Amino acid sequence: MDRRTMIQRSAAALGAALTASPSASSAAPAPAPSTSVEQWDRCELSLHGPSSGNPFTDIEVSATFTLGHRSVDVAGFYDGEGVYKVRYMPDEPGHWVWRSNSKTPDLNGHTGAFEVTKATGANHGPVTTAHQYHFQHADGTPYFPFGTTCYAMAFLGEPFEQQTIDTLRTAGFNKVRLCLLPKPLGHDLFALPFEKHADGSNDLTRLNPAYFAHCERRIQDLCDLDIQADVILFHPYDGWGYKSMPAEVNDLYLKYAVARLASFRNVWWSVANEYDLVKSKTMPEWDHYFHVIQQYDPSSHLRSIHHSRVQYDNSKPWVTHASLQQYDFNKAPEYRAAWGKPILWDEIQYEGNFSRRWGNLSAEEMTRRFWLAVIAGTYATHGDTFNQPKGIPVWSDGGKLSGTSAPRIKFLREVVEKITKVGLNEFEGAYYLSAGTPNQLYLYYFDFHQPAEYDFPLPQGIDFKATLIDPWNMTMTPLPGTIRAVGKQKVTTDEGEASTASSTRVTLPGKPYQAIVFEKV
Amino acid sequence: MDRRTMIQRSAAALGAALTASPSASSAAPAPAPSTSVEQWDRCELSLHGPSSGNPFTDIEVSATFTLGHRSVDVAGFYDGEGVYKVRYMPDEPGHWVWRSNSKTPDLNGHTGAFEVTKATGANHGPVTTAHQYHFQHADGTPYFPFGTTCYAMAFLGEPFEQQTIDTLRTAGFNKVRLCLLPKPLGHDLFALPFEKHADGSNDLTRLNPAYFAHCERRIQDLCDLDIQADVILFHPYDGWGYKSMPAEVNDLYLKYAVARLASFRNVWWSVANEYDLVKSKTMPEWDHYFHVIQQYDPSSHLRSIHHSRVQYDNSKPWVTHASLQQYDFNKAPEYRAAWGKPILWDEIQYEGNFSRRWGNLSAEEMTRRFWLAVIAGTYATHGDTFNQPKGIPVWSDGGKLSGTSAPRIKFLREVVEKITKVGLNEFEGAYYLSAGTPNQLYLYYFDFHQPAEYDFPLPQGIDFKATLIDPWNMTMTPLPGTIRAVGKQKVTTDEGEASTASSTRVTLPGKPYQAIVFEKV
Repeated sequence: MDRRTMIQRSAAALGAALTASPSASSAAPAPAPSTSVEQWDRCELSLHGPSSGNPFTDIEVSATFTLGHRSVDVAGFYDGEGVYKVRYMPDEPGHWVWRSNSKTPDLNGHTGAFEVTKATGANHGPVTTAHQYHFQHADGTPYFPFGTTCYAMAFLGEPFEQQTIDTLRTAGFNKVRLCLLPKPLGHDLFALPFEKHADGSNDLTRLNPAYFAHCERRIQDLCDLDIQADVILFHPYDGWGYKSMPAEVNDLYLKYAVARLASFRNVWWSVANEYDLVKSKTMPEWDHYFHVIQQYDPSSHLRSIHHSRVQYDNSKPWVTHASLQQYDFNKAPEYRAAWGKPILWDEIQYEGNFSRRWGNLSAEEMTRRFWLAVIAGTYATHGDTFNQPKGIPVWSDGGKLSGTSAPRIKFLREVVEKITKVGLNEFEGAYYLSAGTPNQLYLYYFDFHQPAEYDFPLPQGIDFKATLIDPWNMTMTPLPGTIRAVGKQKVTTDEGEASTASSTRVTLPGKPYQAIVFEKV
Repeated sequence: MDRRTMIQRSAAALGAALTASPSASSAAPAPAPSTSVEQWDRCELSLHGPSSGNPFTDIEVSATFTLGHRSVDVAGFYDGEGVYKVRYMPDEPGHWVWRSNSKTPDLNGHTGAFEVTKATGANHGPVTTAHQYHFQHADGTPYFPFGTTCYAMAFLGEPFEQQTIDTLRTAGFNKVRLCLLPKPLGHDLFALPFEKHADGSNDLTRLNPAYFAHCERRIQDLCDLDIQADVILFHPYDGWGYKSMPAEVNDLYLKYAVARLASFRNVWWSVANEYDLVKSKTMPEWDHYFHVIQQYDPSSHLRSIHHSRVQYDNSKPWVTHASLQQYDFNKAPEYRAAWGKPILWDEIQYEGNFSRRWGNLSAEEMTRRFWLAVIAGTYATHGDTFNQPKGIPVWSDGGKLSGTSAPRIKFLREVVEKITKVGLNEFEGAYYLSAGTPNQLYLYYFDFHQPAEYDFPLPQGIDFKATLIDPWNMTMTPLPGTIRAVGKQKVTTDEGEASTASSTRVTLPGKPYQAIVFEKV
């Protein structure tokens, strides 16, 4: 029996070169560390095994990763050419050991060890939910999603895939929604996720490792740019029958995708885009996909499902956050109450000039919607769909941005990152739209209102510095001195105003779509 | 017994000088006509009677106006100084006779006659509902309300009352909402609608004819400008106790107001502004006020009631149209289905720079809301509340306009009056907001959408001329030639587009807030 163990450095900088001891029994002493990997980077174990038969359906391999008394079982996958891989994202520093498990003797009982060092630089670990309605990295670094949409960026072909990455390098978005299964693009793709029979029909028992490896490079590109990859696992835009595969194929595909991708620290699972337009699947099936993902993902990445018209029940415990196709931001309080989770308005229509009404917002309206999302204590996702010459993709598939809202969204992201470490919570029922932290931080967005002045109902006896914000012109103008509410305040409501003079009156620009923030000194 | 009959020409040009025969029994022959009045102008009969006691509560007078076999009973009112008046707006040309009726001998049994001639010039008669969801004048002339708000214009004092009229002369509005009962304005008013006792308390048994006569001059000013007067009979902005008078006083006041004002052809009855903020009145009382108005108004003017938060049940049969304080124009279809009547969004917030959120819309947003109302097959009302120096009123009480939406609203009124004679009906469920008449007229408003082109789903085989409309810049740009849908059309929906080439594709400006109209050639 050839028990060669293939040791690989993962394609990207994240990977660790792991040395496996050529043979080991469970009683063997843990091998000495032969290499090291940074926390939340990827360890990739390569084993040689059979290439005959159907390795995708006939052979299972996994590895157990152990740190002290903690063991984590991680499912592997067949990567073609007789190579089986197991990938893991170690989440704690220390001396880890591993052992492979398989009913296939070639793949069973390999062992090795590696050292996990503390994360450095921009590596803050995966994103998790935090403070109930918000997010942060695993190391506690705040993360506030300001996403965009590039559905086809992983299979668009060159030069467009590189254009996408180049655009994202400076655009300011920190999350991208992308499809793992292909979309019809009007031309042949470089590969497809499943093999074909000789007669051209799908062989849904055999996945195509080259297809997935290619998509992984794009996801790694995103990781290298500190951009979260909201990976869409199913969608209705199908040209090959992938939206209506047999149940066992869906499971095979999901397990394969999770085994390949769960070690990418920037991955989020989006079970589907517009799930309710995939007419071939039932609600119990969608639930089941969540279960499969949870079962096979050792790193517990974020999980959501995106709807078109019919919301999924986001209160279900396997959903980590809501991923909505809506823009009625005033419903945020009722959704928070119902779901108790972060809310992402993941499609709020797109900036563009398409004929379809979801694809032709002005940049001003897209900017406004981002502000409305943020001031509702929630998050939004951008898209850009301007007509392009034949053969040139629109941004929401990838390529180049055409619109002008992106810099304004980047500016809003910078504002939010500057003023809070925990996220903005909506002051529900406030007279003007506002969010922040009581007694600490008050961000107001006036939308179409243009008051010439306003007596802000700030808490008594606290000194605040105030900064006027122009969301479109991207300026922040600090007001001189500090503002402190003393004595009775003039409180403005629809019922009227108390006549007491106020110390919190601020002269405002008297034009619409302005904002102001009060930060405790 | 002194049976002098006072014969007056009504204060305004509308009035007819009526000659009453000095004595008449019911058997007397109809007197010869001594004067004439135009149809829908006002006849005012003046009779002398007692000035002692309380003429407001102790004495009733009415007159029966007869044309052939048709008789109309019209309640009169005490105008002070021993003068009792009966006013009537004759609605048919011909030889009318009248006879006064009263238990007070001085006022009973006077007779007279007058000739009613056909209306001329700008006199198109009062406005009624038409085509279920719209309005027209009694002579069939189309009328589409584009209103504004000048609550205090009838009791603001000079120079502001004249300023109001001067502003309205050119502003382009054809309806004004105004209060009949006074609002506190921070200074003494020229008069109040009720007398006071010596101790300064209200004498709610005695109305003040001078107050009402003054208000009438402003209503007549509006009539002379062809502007409908949406007369608000009760409101919650009270400084004198008028919002919580005893039930019998409310009836006394209503009958008095109707007797004085029902002969003004431009009067509409708005039973209340923000009725639900008048906490002292119950829903059966509001119903009752409608009943009283209907009972005493011989000319059946339009009737509505305006809410703040709690809608009145506009399906009640005495309501002629809905007068809403909302701006969720997308609810128009459900309201039409529920009420089957015209819908006026009579407060959609105000253009301005007030601190209160209802008073600080940008001109762009106000313009947008008017377009949204029109494209929903409904109508809107403007208001303008910019901060002013002390002592200067804001436009929504009267005076001068400060905002810049008014010319755009005037432009929209001109567009509507140009393209339809019957009003625009919403194409409910259309892919883009549109209204018109099937096979005849299609008006699209793209709101925040900015498609670069669109294949309009026009009906087959009809030639249309198309005109691009820029609502803000107030331009209409006719497109060359005609447009005719032939063969299969490319229909755009959220589901996708048919690929068939279309003959109805129009290149659009690719910027938001644009409109286009297609008119059958």
